[in-house]
Amino acid sequence: MPEIQALAFDVFGTVVDWRRSVAREAEALLAPKGVALDWGAFADGWRAKYVPAMARVSSGARPFVALDVLHRENLVDLLAEHRIGGLTEAEIDALNLAWHRLDPWPDVLAGMARLKRRFILASLSNGNVRLMVDVARRAGLLWDAILGAEVARAYKPTPEAYDAAARLLMLDPSECLMVAAHPSDLAAAAARGLRTAYVHRPLERGPHREATRPAPGTFDYAVDSFPELADALGA
Amino acid sequence: MPEIQALAFDVFGTVVDWRRSVAREAEALLAPKGVALDWGAFADGWRAKYVPAMARVSSGARPFVALDVLHRENLVDLLAEHRIGGLTEAEIDALNLAWHRLDPWPDVLAGMARLKRRFILASLSNGNVRLMVDVARRAGLLWDAILGAEVARAYKPTPEAYDAAARLLMLDPSECLMVAAHPSDLAAAAARGLRTAYVHRPLERGPHREATRPAPGTFDYAVDSFPELADALGA
Repeated sequence: MPEIQALAFDVFGTVVDWRRSVAREAEALLAPKGVALDWGAFADGWRAKYVPAMARVSSGARPFVALDVLHRENLVDLLAEHRIGGLTEAEIDALNLAWHRLDPWPDVLAGMARLKRRFILASLSNGNVRLMVDVARRAGLLWDAILGAEVARAYKPTPEAYDAAARLLMLDPSECLMVAAHPSDLAAAAARGLRTAYVHRPLERGPHREATRPAPGTFDYAVDSFPELADALGA
Repeated sequence: MPEIQALAFDVFGTVVDWRRSVAREAEALLAPKGVALDWGAFADGWRAKYVPAMARVSSGARPFVALDVLHRENLVDLLAEHRIGGLTEAEIDALNLAWHRLDPWPDVLAGMARLKRRFILASLSNGNVRLMVDVARRAGLLWDAILGAEVARAYKPTPEAYDAAARLLMLDPSECLMVAAHPSDLAAAAARGLRTAYVHRPLERGPHREATRPAPGTFDYAVDSFPELADALGA
């Protein structure tokens, strides 16, 4: 096998704790308006609309739009389901930016600094460029390039999302390591020839819903943190 | 006017000293083979083929290809013009990577660190993504995003190159400041609604060929260095 030259990262769940961050942002905006909710469940509900919304783009039922657009449509639906009314358009826009203010998992920055010395680090997320830029600037993430859905104009797990990343990095797919907490993402990357690293993120879905670890050997690497990934890669 | 949110940088000549870097790399590869040349003139000759090669893409005469591809075609022509033969394909590939090893002007890093605290910093170069990544990693440039020709699939000064940058950053063009050492680039950016900062780089074309400063007031800002730009923008 050729040497790995670049790491392509899933972001939501793998790099950042979207659930706790979105719950915090929703509470900060809605609680002062008298809304009382299970904020973690609100974040889950928002996230649950993500895959079907992207699927309509990936199937060709609608042209490509940035994830911010899908997030906002889904938010409007979610607010209606919770019978939360009276928000202005500007307030809904502000709440939609919750996804631009996601905190990294505690091990991320130390691991990225080590990995960056040896490898090209690219985001390969379904989040759009501006969302990724805002998250990275706020959290201090060390991307060399923002790739992913908006640059490829294709959402994961569409093959083009992975193909575009390798092509833009001028690498053979086998020189790229997809890093993700989600077996489906890794399986789709492997089908396009990328190598795979599973990162176990037991708290992504909140307490008491720990992710199932894939069977040993399913992916090229399986780790519990970014520093452990750096160890495994000799970085 | 709305506040500036993002700075979009031309790179060749504005951020990096391509002429001296390419001359150094060409000499390092060719001098051991007994080639004796004016290495600065060799770099100039390579660069001179850049605009006509991109023009064939911009006119639609050929489909979009990355700048690395154009650079390599131009290098083959240049070697023939200089009657330099006997290089292997791998040696020509290696020489083509001279453009991935460009040094920043001495003021760049200090200025970028200040600018990054306040603004989104994006490359808006005709160089392809991997070229930009390699230059940035080697030089320590602080990009939040690599935009430009390959992402837009349009070379500057095509309008789409500028439009795509503002669109991907989800900004009105007037919230973006184009930073460049070349009046033609700035004029094309201004025509798409971006604001403009001219940076004087007297040594870009080598000694004794200092660039002509544009008349005062031609662009929104005119500075001699990146720290001076940070001063002008209050960063």
